[in-house]
Amino acid sequence: MSQMTRAAVLGAGSWGTTFAKVLADAGCQVTLHARRAELVAAITDTKENPDYLPGITLPSAVRATTDPGEALEGAEIVVLAVPSQSLRGNLERWTPLLPDDATLLSLMKGIELGTTKRMSEVICEVTGAGLERIAVLSGPNLAREIAEEQPAATVIACADTDRAAALQAACHTAYFRPYTNPDMVGCELGGAVKNVIALAAGIAEGLGFGDNTRASLITRGLAETARLGLALGAELTTFAGLAGLGDLVATCSSPLSRNRTFGEKLGKGMTVEEVQESTRQTAEGVKSCRSVLDLARAHDIDVPITEAVVRVCHEGAAPGRLVKEIMSREAKPE
Amino acid sequence: MSQMTRAAVLGAGSWGTTFAKVLADAGCQVTLHARRAELVAAITDTKENPDYLPGITLPSAVRATTDPGEALEGAEIVVLAVPSQSLRGNLERWTPLLPDDATLLSLMKGIELGTTKRMSEVICEVTGAGLERIAVLSGPNLAREIAEEQPAATVIACADTDRAAALQAACHTAYFRPYTNPDMVGCELGGAVKNVIALAAGIAEGLGFGDNTRASLITRGLAETARLGLALGAELTTFAGLAGLGDLVATCSSPLSRNRTFGEKLGKGMTVEEVQESTRQTAEGVKSCRSVLDLARAHDIDVPITEAVVRVCHEGAAPGRLVKEIMSREAKPE
Repeated sequence: MSQMTRAAVLGAGSWGTTFAKVLADAGCQVTLHARRAELVAAITDTKENPDYLPGITLPSAVRATTDPGEALEGAEIVVLAVPSQSLRGNLERWTPLLPDDATLLSLMKGIELGTTKRMSEVICEVTGAGLERIAVLSGPNLAREIAEEQPAATVIACADTDRAAALQAACHTAYFRPYTNPDMVGCELGGAVKNVIALAAGIAEGLGFGDNTRASLITRGLAETARLGLALGAELTTFAGLAGLGDLVATCSSPLSRNRTFGEKLGKGMTVEEVQESTRQTAEGVKSCRSVLDLARAHDIDVPITEAVVRVCHEGAAPGRLVKEIMSREAKPE
Repeated sequence: MSQMTRAAVLGAGSWGTTFAKVLADAGCQVTLHARRAELVAAITDTKENPDYLPGITLPSAVRATTDPGEALEGAEIVVLAVPSQSLRGNLERWTPLLPDDATLLSLMKGIELGTTKRMSEVICEVTGAGLERIAVLSGPNLAREIAEEQPAATVIACADTDRAAALQAACHTAYFRPYTNPDMVGCELGGAVKNVIALAAGIAEGLGFGDNTRASLITRGLAETARLGLALGAELTTFAGLAGLGDLVATCSSPLSRNRTFGEKLGKGMTVEEVQESTRQTAEGVKSCRSVLDLARAHDIDVPITEAVVRVCHEGAAPGRLVKEIMSREAKPE
């Protein structure tokens, strides 16, 4: 009788909770850590996460706890699924509790403000874990659709091919199909920048622009992501794949995308503060756009869409003018 | 006082009619040729194309005629906007009427059945015009949105840079921004294959699959287009641009896309014949999928999505099974 893989998922938002379900459906024993006692109680009592994944029954192999030590005990896979900007603080508390050889898998899509570090770099720095122990998962993975067991594919990036294969096995289900790719930089960058582009796509939609404009934004957005990625050592092919183009298209198109929806409200005339008050969930791109811009400037890369999003989100610029600027700046696309 | 450029648009479907408006708005004198006398009468009387572009007022510089000779007389730009599979027959009649040095601009997106020729190759062959006189326009250009003057960008491919620049000037308006690209093969192939991928995206949507699946289909669809394009001598960068990715994303996402809509009805269980009876407009992909597949086979290129679409559209295969097959065939994406 083979032993079940033990996995800890730290962070019980919609993606963390969905991924806990995926792991359990793939045969792992999963502990899901949430900070709030009421949420843990609700998950324990109802087998449902009423705040972030209402209507989805979690498998019995998912157990919730407020205690990170309990979640991490004996975990071979540690899944990090907290908001990007809170990773460092959380990790500082969790590091003493991490099992020695556990694989640390990031589901997060952001760039740290101030340091402009990718999530894997923050993990490496705070935990002292070697890069071979760190992995990233990214792809066209709208949480709700996966929770509903619609077929989806994803990419797992890890320098250690054995760990990559073990992760692949640990989350492969009939509806969720992971592929491996050694390009961690490309996967992380694709994930982080797409949130910013999705904000821009949402803004355009809120302003009443249609599918031609959205398609142009996606095209130019992928080009700006790839330019920045190449400067950071990523592979161009990653951006043409599921963790680049795939994730970008899904996020820019779906009503389920928080960043797109956040942008749509901005486009309709709400301020950042008003949108933040009206939603409970984090739109990663609102914070990450500044760190993506800093990163691009540090490498002297032109990122006009990201720049426009920063101006709308943080400098009070009017959305209407900026979309037109982007469309007309698109000067030598081919 | 500079002379107005004279343009003939042959074919008064939604894209031909919209492009006639674009040319007129850019300052050209435009003659729009439609076969049916009632349509010409309606356009003449109401300045509106009630069949294909209801609610859009055409500029006074657009004149409609049933007589191709009248339309072509003195035209410096001849715009070809008929269904792909009817191009050869039409061109055979029009060739004696073509002004000697006119630029022949294709708006068509298809591959000829039987010959597997691109539209520019058919034009070259039938008219005897040198390749430098032939141009292609392609991009994320849903006709209805452009007719409503929503900002859009497009790509004009022509081997002769002077003609490319003249075309660019002839259709550049405040809402329509053309860029040039020498890669005619890539632009034509991107346009033709995207109709096939849009059918697949529509089928998936009709079956109830969400944005993750659509994003995966777009990603894999662009990869299969690029593989085929490279074998035909196209540039990889074209597929990452507006005429590749841009057009593909717009067509796969929009409710205005005929191919996507056609596929959606197939996914919901209608037969090809039933869908054809229920719609007036051509879904290019239904015919082109077979010629794209022939072209791919002739060059020994694997095109799994196109293959699946051919099986659904022409071999009676059940859509449900095929989408799952595509999703699981997506075996080594990265």
